[in-house]
Amino acid sequence: MKSKFIVIEGLEGAGKTSVRHHVVEELNAQGITDIVFTREPGGTPLAEALRNLVKEGVEGENITPNAELLLLYAARVQLVETVIKPALARGAWVIGDRHDLSSQAYQGAGRGLDSTAMMTIKQAVLGDFSPDMTLYLDVTPEIGLLRARQRGELDRIEQESLAFFHRVHQRYRELAAADPTILIIDATQPQQQVQQAVKVRLREWLKEQP
Amino acid sequence: MKSKFIVIEGLEGAGKTSVRHHVVEELNAQGITDIVFTREPGGTPLAEALRNLVKEGVEGENITPNAELLLLYAARVQLVETVIKPALARGAWVIGDRHDLSSQAYQGAGRGLDSTAMMTIKQAVLGDFSPDMTLYLDVTPEIGLLRARQRGELDRIEQESLAFFHRVHQRYRELAAADPTILIIDATQPQQQVQQAVKVRLREWLKEQP
Repeated sequence: MKSKFIVIEGLEGAGKTSVRHHVVEELNAQGITDIVFTREPGGTPLAEALRNLVKEGVEGENITPNAELLLLYAARVQLVETVIKPALARGAWVIGDRHDLSSQAYQGAGRGLDSTAMMTIKQAVLGDFSPDMTLYLDVTPEIGLLRARQRGELDRIEQESLAFFHRVHQRYRELAAADPTILIIDATQPQQQVQQAVKVRLREWLKEQP
Repeated sequence: MKSKFIVIEGLEGAGKTSVRHHVVEELNAQGITDIVFTREPGGTPLAEALRNLVKEGVEGENITPNAELLLLYAARVQLVETVIKPALARGAWVIGDRHDLSSQAYQGAGRGLDSTAMMTIKQAVLGDFSPDMTLYLDVTPEIGLLRARQRGELDRIEQESLAFFHRVHQRYRELAAADPTILIIDATQPQQQVQQAVKVRLREWLKEQP
């Protein structure tokens, strides 16, 4: 089977890290062991520096939504060109913690940026590159943020208002419903059922791949 | 007279800093004293952090041309939205050391990025915002780089090949010739003649402004 780029998406506290373990277990069970992990924003020295700027902000200055968007795309294009595409080209699988869908949800719906302008930027720098499959872990902001808060301190984005996360959640659901490459997992279920759902859906999806 | 955004452009060693002094002197002579200075990339804490990333690079990683372009636009949009537009709105004049023309010349011609894609990104984040007037200081790369080298150490971009700067120079000249808001100054002339040319052209331009 040709190597694939699988992305795990969802709100803070949706359980992306646990799901990544389940995905790896299932891939390993299918004999796929050469796997590269990425996270966005981040995954290269430049992209991690940009992640830090976006997450922590800059002393004495509010980052404008458009500047934030461009920083995230700078980090993404650097990751895609220097890590993800080379990994896929040598036959490795790539599992991404977030990718473009996050920008569409957080910067598009959350920050209210124009989706046409965003698509234009994406097309200009990434062309038609996109994940082979995305697992979208669906949780409400109330549940997700509760879990995220229990983990500890919140960063600049995690401190946004509940209304912000409701807009993000709504956009995630709309985009997931409209895109056949996005598999929706009910992440409000108990951990064991989420694990089971991920493995079953992933196995089915793998069978369909050429 | 409504306040204006004036940009000074040109290759390394073209003499932008000296010309800025001449512009300020002439504006002051016309009674314009509320002047804000910007430099690109830079001019805000975020934009200066991005300037540093672009100029110095990141240990162990080559910044891809597309990522570099997006970082420069992130810095530019942050500067325009938080510094330049507010300054103009309160009636101050703004003198910029480089602006969008630099990206078109360096990233477009120098790095070989597609100009349509670049224009698309610019339009998406900056709309129709552009300088009221640009002074383009025309020097050949040979003369400019000689002067820049005499000033001291070269940064990541100043270390590019001579062929790179010839492409940049060629694009600068093409864009300047096609845009009536760009005044071309022969910056190979002796310093005093450059100063004279800048003041005369600026005075003529100011007379035409509503």
